[in-house]
Amino acid sequence: MELTLLGLGAMGTALARAWLAAGYPLTVWNRTAGRAAPLAAEGAAVAATAAEAVAAGDLVVVCLLDDASVGEALAGVDLTGKDLVNLTTGTPAQARARAEWAESRGARFLDGGIMAVPPMIGVPESGGYVLYSGSRALFDARHDALAVPAGARYVGTDPGFAALHDVALLSAMTGMFAGVSHAFALLRGEDLAPKDFAPLLVEWLTAMAPAAYEIAGQLESGDYTEGVVSNLAMMVEGNATLLRTAEEQRVSAELLIPFTALMERRLADGHADEGTTGVIELLIR
Amino acid sequence: MELTLLGLGAMGTALARAWLAAGYPLTVWNRTAGRAAPLAAEGAAVAATAAEAVAAGDLVVVCLLDDASVGEALAGVDLTGKDLVNLTTGTPAQARARAEWAESRGARFLDGGIMAVPPMIGVPESGGYVLYSGSRALFDARHDALAVPAGARYVGTDPGFAALHDVALLSAMTGMFAGVSHAFALLRGEDLAPKDFAPLLVEWLTAMAPAAYEIAGQLESGDYTEGVVSNLAMMVEGNATLLRTAEEQRVSAELLIPFTALMERRLADGHADEGTTGVIELLIR
Repeated sequence: MELTLLGLGAMGTALARAWLAAGYPLTVWNRTAGRAAPLAAEGAAVAATAAEAVAAGDLVVVCLLDDASVGEALAGVDLTGKDLVNLTTGTPAQARARAEWAESRGARFLDGGIMAVPPMIGVPESGGYVLYSGSRALFDARHDALAVPAGARYVGTDPGFAALHDVALLSAMTGMFAGVSHAFALLRGEDLAPKDFAPLLVEWLTAMAPAAYEIAGQLESGDYTEGVVSNLAMMVEGNATLLRTAEEQRVSAELLIPFTALMERRLADGHADEGTTGVIELLIR
Repeated sequence: MELTLLGLGAMGTALARAWLAAGYPLTVWNRTAGRAAPLAAEGAAVAATAAEAVAAGDLVVVCLLDDASVGEALAGVDLTGKDLVNLTTGTPAQARARAEWAESRGARFLDGGIMAVPPMIGVPESGGYVLYSGSRALFDARHDALAVPAGARYVGTDPGFAALHDVALLSAMTGMFAGVSHAFALLRGEDLAPKDFAPLLVEWLTAMAPAAYEIAGQLESGDYTEGVVSNLAMMVEGNATLLRTAEEQRVSAELLIPFTALMERRLADGHADEGTTGVIELLIR
């Protein structure tokens, strides 16, 4: 099997190195050619054009800046019989459109969302992985190669699912980091070292993360009061202490207010006995 | 040692049961007397007034609605020589003021923040615990009794520290739950069961929570670029995909926008090489 990689940013370069280290024959291409030179020294063939690179490979992995770059790089390139794996960051809708586009050009298509940063690539113990969705046949046929840079996890035939999972995970993380930022801001000016607080914080977030199982169960049963111990009425009361403390500590509450406001709205709608799951309804347009 | 408990809401009742089950002689009082009856049947002495209850105990635990209720319940009550432990939810400033108030009345004072819900009280394997701050002498002298309902953790002589830790942890959790809510909202209308997504989400949040150690390290060194792999410039770029996906999935981005906006502000201020730690500066008034 011949492997081709389009795109040699930080992530593409890390992917290339992982495949070269594992002994895969690899052809690379990058829009600005300079980035390929170090990889050539490590054994990669360097193609002058994307079309040449694609022609050299059975399995073609694309890791470019964005979906538009994928369209530009592959415009007019013959994809017949190719296995195209798109690791370019994008939205579920972009992945679905790209899948149709690739299949109409005679390729099998798999979209991927990389849940790792470049230093984690090729380092199995880092725990990094790639979410894949689209052609199951492609995933199964190319699993060994796909599993080289990071764990390969298949999440569905819908080509938009890898991006959907990816974005949902990153969105949840954004919320967690917002909360963590607020927490550290509260400690400013106090005789309390962030390093002494961090272990407690990590332990707490780790202990509370499994609440997601309860939320998932409630979403599936439709009963948002199921198993609730700390209910919305109690939580909204508790939020007042959080907001008052932010004020006392001279910390802007802008990262807390949107969620507390939604909890209040849901409570006002008569759902005192629920947990926070009902807030999800308020987010759907 | 005689133990007194003021306040028999859901939490106070759970505390009372834990101490009774462990064989502690216990006197209870509640503003509305009805709640004490079941505990009387389980062996608690029931006091008619808060003053009577306080007079009966060496260690007086208070678990009332809010700080104002503590002031009302204990107004004019003789606290000389008492060990007063306040488990009432409040802010750091309230705890500090209450400590001064108690000490000026001749009591030793400890403030506590309960990191547990009532069903976790008296269940060591639940992992619930209480954060304590204030008099170390009181904590050491009464540790055995304090450790009965849940793990007892001392976080400093500053009586405001228990509440500060408590509120910081709950604030961080609020952010995480906001992120989790947004993540589940994105799945609506997709052929993807929340229960199938939940394990991935819990695993991801658990893997990402230790980022708090890196943030703490940066806060202490003052170098917010220390160890940064995914920098602000890359994250702000990634946020565009998160926001675009929210729009495609018809999910309001109101829970993501405040943090992404702060990241953009920090980036615009010239901190492309940092992680998210610099956002904390923008929260301080």
